[in-house]
Amino acid sequence: MNTGVCYFPEHWDREQWEADIERMAESGIEYVRMAEFSWNRMEPEPGVYEFEWLEEAVNLVGDSGMKAVLCTPTATPPKWLLDEYPSIRQEGRDGTPREFGSRRHYCFNSPVYRRESRRIIEKMAARFADDEYVAGWQTDNEFGCHDTTRCYCDDCASAFRTWLREKYDSVDALNEAWGNAFWSQEYGSFAEVDLPGPTPAQDQHHPSRLLEYKRFASDSVAEYNRLHTGILREANSEWFVTHNFMGNFPDIDAFSVSEDLSFAAWDCYPTLFSQQIPDAPDPASEEGATFQRVGDPDMIGMNHALYRGASDGPFWVMESQSGDIRAYPYSAEPADGMVRLWSHQAVAHGCDVVSYFRWRRCRFGQEQYWGGLNNYDGSPDRGLAEATEAAEDFAELPNLDAPSGDVAMLVDYDSLWALETEPHTPEFHYFAHLRAYYRAFRSRGVTVDLVPASRDVSEYAAVVAPSLHLVDQELSERLAEYVSDGGELLLTIRTAMKDEYHKLRDELAPGPLAEPLGARVGQHESLAPGLEKRVRYDGETYEYRTWAEWLTADEATVVGRHETGVAEGEPAIVRNDYGNGHAAYAGVWPEAELADAITTTLLERADVPFGERLPEFVRLAERDGYTWVLNFRAEPLEIDPGNRTPTLGGTTIRGRDLAIVDAPPHEIDLIEEG
Amino acid sequence: MNTGVCYFPEHWDREQWEADIERMAESGIEYVRMAEFSWNRMEPEPGVYEFEWLEEAVNLVGDSGMKAVLCTPTATPPKWLLDEYPSIRQEGRDGTPREFGSRRHYCFNSPVYRRESRRIIEKMAARFADDEYVAGWQTDNEFGCHDTTRCYCDDCASAFRTWLREKYDSVDALNEAWGNAFWSQEYGSFAEVDLPGPTPAQDQHHPSRLLEYKRFASDSVAEYNRLHTGILREANSEWFVTHNFMGNFPDIDAFSVSEDLSFAAWDCYPTLFSQQIPDAPDPASEEGATFQRVGDPDMIGMNHALYRGASDGPFWVMESQSGDIRAYPYSAEPADGMVRLWSHQAVAHGCDVVSYFRWRRCRFGQEQYWGGLNNYDGSPDRGLAEATEAAEDFAELPNLDAPSGDVAMLVDYDSLWALETEPHTPEFHYFAHLRAYYRAFRSRGVTVDLVPASRDVSEYAAVVAPSLHLVDQELSERLAEYVSDGGELLLTIRTAMKDEYHKLRDELAPGPLAEPLGARVGQHESLAPGLEKRVRYDGETYEYRTWAEWLTADEATVVGRHETGVAEGEPAIVRNDYGNGHAAYAGVWPEAELADAITTTLLERADVPFGERLPEFVRLAERDGYTWVLNFRAEPLEIDPGNRTPTLGGTTIRGRDLAIVDAPPHEIDLIEEG
Amino acid sequence: MNTGVCYFPEHWDREQWEADIERMAESGIEYVRMAEFSWNRMEPEPGVYEFEWLEEAVNLVGDSGMKAVLCTPTATPPKWLLDEYPSIRQEGRDGTPREFGSRRHYCFNSPVYRRESRRIIEKMAARFADDEYVAGWQTDNEFGCHDTTRCYCDDCASAFRTWLREKYDSVDALNEAWGNAFWSQEYGSFAEVDLPGPTPAQDQHHPSRLLEYKRFASDSVAEYNRLHTGILREANSEWFVTHNFMGNFPDIDAFSVSEDLSFAAWDCYPTLFSQQIPDAPDPASEEGATFQRVGDPDMIGMNHALYRGASDGPFWVMESQSGDIRAYPYSAEPADGMVRLWSHQAVAHGCDVVSYFRWRRCRFGQEQYWGGLNNYDGSPDRGLAEATEAAEDFAELPNLDAPSGDVAMLVDYDSLWALETEPHTPEFHYFAHLRAYYRAFRSRGVTVDLVPASRDVSEYAAVVAPSLHLVDQELSERLAEYVSDGGELLLTIRTAMKDEYHKLRDELAPGPLAEPLGARVGQHESLAPGLEKRVRYDGETYEYRTWAEWLTADEATVVGRHETGVAEGEPAIVRNDYGNGHAAYAGVWPEAELADAITTTLLERADVPFGERLPEFVRLAERDGYTWVLNFRAEPLEIDPGNRTPTLGGTTIRGRDLAIVDAPPHEIDLIEEG
Ligand SMILES: [Zn+2]
Ligand SMILES: [Zn+2]
Ligand SMILES: [Zn+2]
Repeated sequence: MNTGVCYFPEHWDREQWEADIERMAESGIEYVRMAEFSWNRMEPEPGVYEFEWLEEAVNLVGDSGMKAVLCTPTATPPKWLLDEYPSIRQEGRDGTPREFGSRRHYCFNSPVYRRESRRIIEKMAARFADDEYVAGWQTDNEFGCHDTTRCYCDDCASAFRTWLREKYDSVDALNEAWGNAFWSQEYGSFAEVDLPGPTPAQDQHHPSRLLEYKRFASDSVAEYNRLHTGILREANSEWFVTHNFMGNFPDIDAFSVSEDLSFAAWDCYPTLFSQQIPDAPDPASEEGATFQRVGDPDMIGMNHALYRGASDGPFWVMESQSGDIRAYPYSAEPADGMVRLWSHQAVAHGCDVVSYFRWRRCRFGQEQYWGGLNNYDGSPDRGLAEATEAAEDFAELPNLDAPSGDVAMLVDYDSLWALETEPHTPEFHYFAHLRAYYRAFRSRGVTVDLVPASRDVSEYAAVVAPSLHLVDQELSERLAEYVSDGGELLLTIRTAMKDEYHKLRDELAPGPLAEPLGARVGQHESLAPGLEKRVRYDGETYEYRTWAEWLTADEATVVGRHETGVAEGEPAIVRNDYGNGHAAYAGVWPEAELADAITTTLLERADVPFGERLPEFVRLAERDGYTWVLNFRAEPLEIDPGNRTPTLGGTTIRGRDLAIVDAPPHEIDLIEEG
Repeated sequence: MNTGVCYFPEHWDREQWEADIERMAESGIEYVRMAEFSWNRMEPEPGVYEFEWLEEAVNLVGDSGMKAVLCTPTATPPKWLLDEYPSIRQEGRDGTPREFGSRRHYCFNSPVYRRESRRIIEKMAARFADDEYVAGWQTDNEFGCHDTTRCYCDDCASAFRTWLREKYDSVDALNEAWGNAFWSQEYGSFAEVDLPGPTPAQDQHHPSRLLEYKRFASDSVAEYNRLHTGILREANSEWFVTHNFMGNFPDIDAFSVSEDLSFAAWDCYPTLFSQQIPDAPDPASEEGATFQRVGDPDMIGMNHALYRGASDGPFWVMESQSGDIRAYPYSAEPADGMVRLWSHQAVAHGCDVVSYFRWRRCRFGQEQYWGGLNNYDGSPDRGLAEATEAAEDFAELPNLDAPSGDVAMLVDYDSLWALETEPHTPEFHYFAHLRAYYRAFRSRGVTVDLVPASRDVSEYAAVVAPSLHLVDQELSERLAEYVSDGGELLLTIRTAMKDEYHKLRDELAPGPLAEPLGARVGQHESLAPGLEKRVRYDGETYEYRTWAEWLTADEATVVGRHETGVAEGEPAIVRNDYGNGHAAYAGVWPEAELADAITTTLLERADVPFGERLPEFVRLAERDGYTWVLNFRAEPLEIDPGNRTPTLGGTTIRGRDLAIVDAPPHEIDLIEEG
Repeated sequence: MNTGVCYFPEHWDREQWEADIERMAESGIEYVRMAEFSWNRMEPEPGVYEFEWLEEAVNLVGDSGMKAVLCTPTATPPKWLLDEYPSIRQEGRDGTPREFGSRRHYCFNSPVYRRESRRIIEKMAARFADDEYVAGWQTDNEFGCHDTTRCYCDDCASAFRTWLREKYDSVDALNEAWGNAFWSQEYGSFAEVDLPGPTPAQDQHHPSRLLEYKRFASDSVAEYNRLHTGILREANSEWFVTHNFMGNFPDIDAFSVSEDLSFAAWDCYPTLFSQQIPDAPDPASEEGATFQRVGDPDMIGMNHALYRGASDGPFWVMESQSGDIRAYPYSAEPADGMVRLWSHQAVAHGCDVVSYFRWRRCRFGQEQYWGGLNNYDGSPDRGLAEATEAAEDFAELPNLDAPSGDVAMLVDYDSLWALETEPHTPEFHYFAHLRAYYRAFRSRGVTVDLVPASRDVSEYAAVVAPSLHLVDQELSERLAEYVSDGGELLLTIRTAMKDEYHKLRDELAPGPLAEPLGARVGQHESLAPGLEKRVRYDGETYEYRTWAEWLTADEATVVGRHETGVAEGEPAIVRNDYGNGHAAYAGVWPEAELADAITTTLLERADVPFGERLPEFVRLAERDGYTWVLNFRAEPLEIDPGNRTPTLGGTTIRGRDLAIVDAPPHEIDLIEEG
């Protein structure tokens, strides 16, 4: 496990480079990412290439004993390119082009832009194909950032029609699959299908059409990414190729794009994300305030798990927060120790390289409020010493395999997009619902793998499929088989309500999964804060939030019932014996106590070991037999690791510090003051 | 009184129809509405008509002993029609066309769309002209839904200029009438008058221009509706023709459109409306939460009264909520009993047919979260039994005339539009202000007729004219005559402040009504929550909200004075003897207690009987001598109907249940627990 | 000192004029502003001029012993002009033209509109050049109102490129100055530089580009204003020429535009502004409610000081609030006495003419809810008697020089624009931060001059430079010299962080000012409400808001330290001996108590006399040796003016009343009830 850093030599005087790069090496850094956004420096005029400066920087990096990671510079086409080919600009929903002046102003489906991208990537790849100092590549930067996944230009309209023609045998098949008899929405030909632009009721486009448009847009990104990976692999098949995804990002199927990558990477900004996620706590609250200093450990962890799942093994954090950043609405300085603690958390979750953003705060342009390891005057900033210490820590550790859990959580972008289109209440968010369960497992020290619904889960002791809204025949059969073969399956609200085209089924939810579950969903409702929301489960009363379903148990056993509202007395949670396993269904969005009760029951049945419930800002993370005890709190923490001695740190862990113990989480006890 | 249902045979397999229709008949249903939105099924290609399927469905309905109500399908022009004639699309304020993909994407003033509408309606009308099973028609669907009343296309610009030319003798007359000397807004010709598009201060177009544009837009809808009614009546003069209006809808003058209808109908979704009206209570509050289960009884009732007024007799509820719907932000399941209770409430207010939306939840398209009498698997949903019971109840009742009250409330869309243009504070809403008075009367069991300001009110014991902002000479003379002939007139804030062109008058408000009132309005103000707002009236102190005026009494008697603010000591409420009657003016927006005090005083003077003040969720509604006791509460209710025995139900009324008593409201006592 | 009034003869029948104008004179009015917005009345058809009506009105004014102030009517080009030259319309960010129908729908850079403006101004100027009754002119009206400072049309794009070419030697110099290496934003030529239209990340245009665009837009207004002043001065060099600026208006550099004016004027609407400023208190709070009755005395005062600074001497209030207005969201009636009290406050701050808006409430158009001295029926409204009394008061006073303080506060629009572009947190607002300090001085009775950063401040005892974000070499040297020569300089958060192109410097903030300060800014952060925010200063603990920096003291003395958060223990406030003076830096945004502590320390060092801390709604304002005691409270106030007798009023001052004492503020004691 190593550290890296993002460096932009083009932002600094040439005479500065040696000193910068030397200090990087001294800080224990192994990888230096460069050339992101630098198209204009590599091709200042059409067809005039200047790679010398980059070659020089790569050589300095390599000569200092580090490796370079290069980026395809396509996130920022130069002004001369846009002026020559205005058609490459993205267009907004109402047809307004996205002009030059920030980044990502191009359309993924523009044939011209694909040709121009190919040209610059081929030139770069050829130039560095034999450079021993170049370890690998990052494609583009943060696909989809600034709401750019979906474009409404004519090139996209044509591409969408082609995409539909390939998927459907005929336009009649499309009409039937979508249910276009509704509101006279049938098409007479594929040519009649437009992109979903402004219509009288803005959020009321046909949901099947919106879903397909979102699938198409995500596929377009994957195809565009493949253009990069193909050229790079052809130039040098030993290079790794990755992409830096964003956290909590709903618009692109990270699993699909990652199929073409060596591994996935992501950009981790805890104090930003914990204010931006839709269910972020009020920044005026104590929890919200703490999140601004240390982030939400489980929000961070769930992203690690997602990109580990996308990598199907170790992943990278390509940009790791190294200080204060331009978070909105507030940008607090991270607490002392967090740069190192976040680095360890990443590694504990399976990250192999933690690459800090960035070496030095930039003096100009849009990101002057985005800190780095060094301040803008070049002096070390708060994070540098911590990053250096993290590098030293990692050097002491043996090579470790990626973590692999006993519990799989299915993540399905199709379901996410479908639910976005019909959230039923603005409070519902797919990732937030998943996080409720993820947090429950993590507060018991249990490792959870986030995997695509298409992945084989037969080896997992337990499988959780939260809000798996769209289920096709193949998937439902596979899940039924998993249960009948002895698996423990937990389904939650809104699961299998729809078919793969976003239509309600002929039978009540969970459709084909009603068979293994032995129950059906009779009603659903979203409830205002003013309405009571409680269920009785396993002899206790629990709170839930926003969403309630009530169930009809056929073969299933009712294990939870509604205590409030119109649903009072109706089944809320059921469990069914099916073959050698069990299927359960939780028909409410649980608050933390209920999520804990449901998941521990599941873990017990699945015979997955778990520990005492951890405090909110303490987490245990296991990787290849080692457990990181991560203390996000300000207060110190005493642990009792049984007869082990911590591999790193001691049994008293200061605030925002950690220890590593050569034992599984459930064998480590926390000693709380009496 | 009967029930009906909305059915979309085109959404279901042909083999399903018999079973569905048979079950409708078994549920006591008399009317089945069909063919809404089905243009593409009737004309899948230009000029290729397919009516057989609809004929089949109509025959099945008729053969089961029910009647069909057909719809002109113009709310959803097919894609091929839009592609052939793009000019029929509505345009938004900034010129963005409203594309295909939802509904109502057409312009009311498009000559092409009028021609195409005429064509399909004529074809349909001809086909079913001699069909004995077709009882009548609904024109289009929910005119103006999704903010589509007002279009900014070139066809509308031309039509607006024509409309102005017809109204004004010359452009100089227009300049004078509007007061265009302000900010150099004078026009040199009618051709210079554009639609009110984007201008530097978005909400600061000339108010007279905005008012006329809104009048024109409403007139355009009425004209377009007349195109439908004309063709249908010509085809079969025995058909009724109606339209399904929306609740609380401000953009279209329902009185004006209804002049061309046999009667008005409306679509009643209590749990939706009670979250969407601008003065909706916080969904986190107890009242807001209850509204989500049962709706606001007076908000529902006021819409019933409005469309009864538009019908000048019995009306229909064309779409009655039958279960959970896609309400925003929350969609709670209605309380048990509400489907039947809402049905009875409608009938009590003068509805002759309660037609449920819809037979079965649709499996595809935009309304999958909009429930029906049956669930999407075809099984009965929660509402079906209640709808069936309601049909049985209605079958037991004699035929009843529509209710007619002793109190008229004037509703004036011109005033509404004028006040929208100059609300003075975003808290002011016309219907909300009317509802304050409507609620006060209803909490005393008094029937209120909502009638257009143009209607003869001489027979009413009392007339309330809340915020009758625009008054012309004819109307003010008529109201003065009403008073001098012995009537009791109550005026409220902002009345007669403007002339019919939306200009302030030469004399202070209430302009020509100052004569019968004997008082004038000196000042007005809108007040923040932080400012105290109290008046002294009839020996008591009362709260008011947001709006205060202070008055100058000439002949009038001051009966209420301000107790707070700059207005302290100034007259707030006055009453005047004028001829044989009285005119009163309430210069504040009353909270409930004050509204009660003002209205009971009025009722006493007018000699209109009224009862004790009812709890918020209990209402008495009289129709043709019978009084419905409607219990929207969860708790049971004891009544003492004197020496009568309830016609339906008993003297103990369960929660969300009702009784019908053959007596007027004020002779029925509520027995509350001591 | 005098009063004036705004009059629109074109809104009233000709026969009304004599009576109106006669009553103005009787009310003590000296100046009547006319012809604003009346282009179409002066030129109803292209090239057909009608000035007779205005001449008549001017004659009536003059014959009544008053003077006329005329306006260039360019804020409202007539419809025929827009129809003939559509290119003169402003365009919004997305290219949508701003259509006719309100005002300010023209582009400052349109060559056609400049030509047309010149034509009508020349005609007017020629017509009235020899008219003895015309005292002077107002150019246009409220430049920039309704967000019209910045236009995105092609004329502006060309003008912007020209402006850049004149400023930068080459496009490479521009690239270097802005730092366009970031995100490949380098330009190959000036022709490639567009206006900052829609880009993927809307608020993420290059900050240097945005700053220059804002500078350009403000310069365009100044240039357009110069077109007016040039013509008018050429016609009659004795005329004064002014412009009516708005309050708290950030888009236009008032200092720069005022250079071409005889003096600045502004439009003062206290009850509007105190709801619209970004840090306005909650209207539901008691403070917010009071502001709606009387305004925020210091918000008003700071605007007076700003326009006095822009005038470098006495200024005018061209539109002074005379009653209730269309304030949003609430429009309360001002408290009794406020029209007179506001007038006195203006005069105390250096206003020479208080001109009321407007003579009579207008009966039509957009401002019917905007009151005047008379109601719309012509009867005196609440303000008329107060305005008359104010005129009588002023007649009793001697002629007074403008106030001049011992303390200068630097106002820098470049810094404001830069901070707008990168606020770092939406809570930060430049004027709000300045007001924190302004309020502190004013609550001690100290006169503060607001002056541009370019002005010579060597004579001031103390200089405050709040958030002087951009500092160039010349300015920093001048400020250093000010200190070394014995001055007392107070710098605050965010000062000198950037160079004049909006780039971070090579050295830490405050850049070149670190030398006189003897300290640097190590870190900065914006903090959520939920995080503690306290510093220890001078033995006491104080609260601050939102923004924290922590400092590194080199030569400086640490006088305040952080008590909370990550910054705990770090220096927050420092002071340095430098030459014969001192430089101090306050690294937090102070709440009132801390602002008071910091400013009184400064005043003591600078030997500026100050008094006891005044209550929030009591203010003392000195002009030329006279002190106004202004009581904005409802309660009376007792003062002890030592051995003086008040020149106006007595020692007991009623609520919303005043006294004038011939003594400086610190010699007047307030006697509060024990
Ligand atoms: Zn595109
Ligand atoms: Zn139109
Ligand atoms: Zn322009």
